[in-house]
Amino acid sequence: MNVAQQQPVFRHGLRVYWEDTDAGGVVFYANYLKFFERARTEWLRQLGFEQERLRLDAGAMFVVSETALRYLAPARLDDWLDVSVELRERGRASMLIRQQAWRSGQLLAEGEIRIGCVGAADFKPCRIPAAILQALDKTSSSLAQDLTP
Amino acid sequence: MNVAQQQPVFRHGLRVYWEDTDAGGVVFYANYLKFFERARTEWLRQLGFEQERLRLDAGAMFVVSETALRYLAPARLDDWLDVSVELRERGRASMLIRQQAWRSGQLLAEGEIRIGCVGAADFKPCRIPAAILQALDKTSSSLAQDLTP
Amino acid sequence: MNVAQQQPVFRHGLRVYWEDTDAGGVVFYANYLKFFERARTEWLRQLGFEQERLRLDAGAMFVVSETALRYLAPARLDDWLDVSVELRERGRASMLIRQQAWRSGQLLAEGEIRIGCVGAADFKPCRIPAAILQALDKTSSSLAQDLTP
Amino acid sequence: MNVAQQQPVFRHGLRVYWEDTDAGGVVFYANYLKFFERARTEWLRQLGFEQERLRLDAGAMFVVSETALRYLAPARLDDWLDVSVELRERGRASMLIRQQAWRSGQLLAEGEIRIGCVGAADFKPCRIPAAILQALDKTSSSLAQDLTP
Repeated sequence: MNVAQQQPVFRHGLRVYWEDTDAGGVVFYANYLKFFERARTEWLRQLGFEQERLRLDAGAMFVVSETALRYLAPARLDDWLDVSVELRERGRASMLIRQQAWRSGQLLAEGEIRIGCVGAADFKPCRIPAAILQALDKTSSSLAQDLTP
Repeated sequence: MNVAQQQPVFRHGLRVYWEDTDAGGVVFYANYLKFFERARTEWLRQLGFEQERLRLDAGAMFVVSETALRYLAPARLDDWLDVSVELRERGRASMLIRQQAWRSGQLLAEGEIRIGCVGAADFKPCRIPAAILQALDKTSSSLAQDLTP
Repeated sequence: MNVAQQQPVFRHGLRVYWEDTDAGGVVFYANYLKFFERARTEWLRQLGFEQERLRLDAGAMFVVSETALRYLAPARLDDWLDVSVELRERGRASMLIRQQAWRSGQLLAEGEIRIGCVGAADFKPCRIPAAILQALDKTSSSLAQDLTP
Repeated sequence: MNVAQQQPVFRHGLRVYWEDTDAGGVVFYANYLKFFERARTEWLRQLGFEQERLRLDAGAMFVVSETALRYLAPARLDDWLDVSVELRERGRASMLIRQQAWRSGQLLAEGEIRIGCVGAADFKPCRIPAAILQALDKTSSSLAQDLTP
């Protein structure tokens, strides 16, 4: 299901600390994957889901199967970044999420992250729990209704 | 100058994400140093100082010269932690800061961090900029006055 | 210049430690970017180049402008990984490098990393230093000669 | 049991990569805890023990309960560090380990790490597996014999 048209964009703000930088004086590029993950975690949380609970209750975990990022401009210590989360596709066992990191209106990095649902014990693909699918679709369709005349 | 009696405690909240955990299922102990540093950075910020600006304007950096931590109980994914910052001693070129990480009233980790001021180019010890010293002492003395009958 | 046909594959071995894992019990996916970078650093080193020296002497740095990774199977604590580096394209200011992480004959993760050369002070694109270009081409052409009947 | 007198010092070498540095241009101090841990892991390995196996077979994990480090001089990108591991005390459920990081004869950082053995499921203190205790004592006593006239 391609949900790009209907999906609202979730935003999460975060600060750049010493731990995020490297000797180039800027944010180490691998850390954008951490920033993007924090934003996805908060996006799931505002939909009502915590991943530690998901693992304990449903024995399921979301794992990242693909990442594709472009780094456009460097972020520095003390910068405040806005990280977006936008669901582009969702299937029964995986999702494609588009994310961007902005600083004061300048796009610094962006990319696509593919997430799959797996069993916490065996790492075999499994269905995304129904409650999460419903929450994802509800968000999409409610927005779709808002946009429909 | 021992300022422990007069110093208010600053608090900074943060979330535990996947990046912070290890295969033991809990927060990797080295990451408490990151959490403590984030809290110190926000403590300096609310006093009016940004470290990137300090480096560019004054050519000075705070570096950590000693850390002593005790790990009491594990934190897990999705936990919300409260990290405290308490100035215990301040000299002309260094400070001793006491920090704790709490989750819902349970103390998880605590320790002391010694910070020194150095030249950004040569890493040689230098005086803490006067404006920062004044801000530190003002905070301490204003609180002391509040507490004095 | 497309150098894929002629380029030998460089390999770098590394161990998985606690710091690399997450609460899923496996290597945190963002850390493959670190593993890949370590391998590229050693690849440059065996060509005769150190990046700290490059920064100090030529005022140039290699920065990552694009990463595209697929995560195929999880690595765990204590695993020994083999990480490959294969130059696919090189221009005057950037390179495309293909990398894979293997464990005992099983491919765990792979991807493409685009590297650009920038000024260390201004982050503006600059030419890759001539000595490095020569070393890259020499490696390629010497292998090409080996393969030619 | 205080084993400091008899204990040989184990050494592990490692390279500083971009991931280890921060915007100060040097190794981020928290990363010495990672370096020290890598060395302890290799020290246990040469004694015949892998921690992933320990967790799976004995349901036990080593966790860090205290760290006390002094940072004396900065390490930089491309530096090669020698990290030492020296067992200072070992009890039935915990050990105290002294560690140092050197670069070409210069001591950069040092400290003490207290390690405890806990159940992997409940994090409750447990005895260090007998085979590990024996290996630790054997190393100590064999050296003691070597030193005894």
